[in-house]
Amino acid sequence: MKLATYKDGSRDGQLVVVSRDLTTAHYATGIASRLQQVLDDWNFMSPQLQDVYAALNRVAEGSSPAGLARNPFPFDPDMCMAPLPRAYQWADGSAYINHVELVRLARKAEVPANFYTEPLMYQGGSDDFLGPRDDVVCADEAWGIDFESELAVVTSDLPMSCTPERALDGVRLMMLVNDVSLRNLIPEELAKGFGFVQSKPATAFSPVAVTLDEIGDAWRKGRASLTVQSTWNGRKVGMCDAGEEMTFHFGQLIAHLCKTRNVRAGSIVGSGTISNRAIEKNGKKEWVNGYSCIAEKRAIETILDGQPSTSYMKFGDIIRIEVKGKDGQSVFGAIEQKVTSQS
Amino acid sequence: MKLATYKDGSRDGQLVVVSRDLTTAHYATGIASRLQQVLDDWNFMSPQLQDVYAALNRVAEGSSPAGLARNPFPFDPDMCMAPLPRAYQWADGSAYINHVELVRLARKAEVPANFYTEPLMYQGGSDDFLGPRDDVVCADEAWGIDFESELAVVTSDLPMSCTPERALDGVRLMMLVNDVSLRNLIPEELAKGFGFVQSKPATAFSPVAVTLDEIGDAWRKGRASLTVQSTWNGRKVGMCDAGEEMTFHFGQLIAHLCKTRNVRAGSIVGSGTISNRAIEKNGKKEWVNGYSCIAEKRAIETILDGQPSTSYMKFGDIIRIEVKGKDGQSVFGAIEQKVTSQS
Repeated sequence: MKLATYKDGSRDGQLVVVSRDLTTAHYATGIASRLQQVLDDWNFMSPQLQDVYAALNRVAEGSSPAGLARNPFPFDPDMCMAPLPRAYQWADGSAYINHVELVRLARKAEVPANFYTEPLMYQGGSDDFLGPRDDVVCADEAWGIDFESELAVVTSDLPMSCTPERALDGVRLMMLVNDVSLRNLIPEELAKGFGFVQSKPATAFSPVAVTLDEIGDAWRKGRASLTVQSTWNGRKVGMCDAGEEMTFHFGQLIAHLCKTRNVRAGSIVGSGTISNRAIEKNGKKEWVNGYSCIAEKRAIETILDGQPSTSYMKFGDIIRIEVKGKDGQSVFGAIEQKVTSQS
Repeated sequence: MKLATYKDGSRDGQLVVVSRDLTTAHYATGIASRLQQVLDDWNFMSPQLQDVYAALNRVAEGSSPAGLARNPFPFDPDMCMAPLPRAYQWADGSAYINHVELVRLARKAEVPANFYTEPLMYQGGSDDFLGPRDDVVCADEAWGIDFESELAVVTSDLPMSCTPERALDGVRLMMLVNDVSLRNLIPEELAKGFGFVQSKPATAFSPVAVTLDEIGDAWRKGRASLTVQSTWNGRKVGMCDAGEEMTFHFGQLIAHLCKTRNVRAGSIVGSGTISNRAIEKNGKKEWVNGYSCIAEKRAIETILDGQPSTSYMKFGDIIRIEVKGKDGQSVFGAIEQKVTSQS
């Protein structure tokens, strides 16, 4: 099932069910008005939403009378807030060790041994998420504005100390993420050791959040074998596979978060920048899948040429992040955001 | 006005208004059921709650007919969840530079120059707060269980880039905090630079959250001149003044958080461990106000004796944190928590 949150002037928006092909939507009125309500009471509410979803898909296909979906309307991603416009937790891993290796190699720093056995993870701000078409507003281009294309899951309640396997049972929904980063503010915050406060502004999410059955057999052992496309100013810069090279799967990321505390329903856990290894061609390394953030491209340039040549984003730049299924249809809808200056 | 959240089996509990002397309470039924609702719509709801509060104080004093407070009941802190049982943001500063200096001096590390001009701050988990009498549950004593006595404020909506002065206008409520810390997990997380995920388990808050008028002229230029008492296993170990020695005031802390993003209503911003400087007595330093966390006591012991002699908390230990007003009455009610092992 696919769920979205429509802008209605309120802080939490209105929950809508969206057809599989993303053409048609229906308010979840009568079941729940907000996605957090559904996550708080998943076993009771999700089957009811599933019934609306089934009816809506039949309407979208034109194959049957409306039934439960008697007031459908065309789905418009421009109307979307983040599926959870605000959340009680946003914890973002850095699960693709290849990304960490490249960034460290570029600055001639070693990767500490425990980075291979324990996920990196930071606690992010979750009070003010961006919708998929909301501008990335920034006061200063010089802060080094970057996108990060990621996947994230939304969890159920999970107990302290739970195992990665148990944690996987608690995955309710999956979304796309643009984990906007201000690269030139990061070194100082990293040095302090207290994590990212200023260098991670508001995070954006895809138009819809989907249950795992929507990605079918692409979901394997806690990893999603999906190709995440990143298109920067109309140029496809990344076609990265999110599956096999994910060093820590989502169950491991969630279990890391659960080590010393309970994790409550509606927590969002991110994968970190999706990153694929280079392949050897004629004795040279080639990063054929491109990149999911500019920092990684600059790291590669630094490794190859001694210095970066790609600049970070400028005001007016547009980043589009999308995943197409085997059938060629968009799974989550596209994040498409313009970078703008604070007026 | 003083507000609390009563346990009722739900995730967000029931909002109650509490009399100034903390003897009497009244459900906020008819105005709002949850504190977040009030913060979302403060200008509309808070005057209504204020009216109930005024009536309730008259009832508590036995001085007048009940009026709006016609169903009062005895206030019981054991019934309390955190005033916000879950929140969209919890960002904790480290605003008392004396604490940072002591901890660094003990490990012979310098305090970086920018620590005097920019607050340290970490983003904490906010999905699963503890009530004032909930146990601190921990899987392993060896993790180095510590309390941290702090003050925190709850904010209104505040815009990106707002000034410290503007930020102060957005302070809605103040609470006491026990920012539970697992000291032996901190060095590894600090070294990673990504902040605290496992070393900061669930945070606890005082029975009531209060508006700033409740502390009267103790609120001065963004600092609260209150004595925060920390009592560990019945022994008063800290009587720290939260006011003058707060290096960065709450407006500066909130503005730090706002530099690159909007801060939304109901965000909780903490002061960090309250810490006072030593005074010189007969050529020797004495920390007469005691300590608000064991780590600081151990730092002092290390500075004086070369090694720490005070152990962290054990299962069964009890920590009590409280502030008494000029009239000797408890301002926020007491946090009183037992440390227990995970069963």
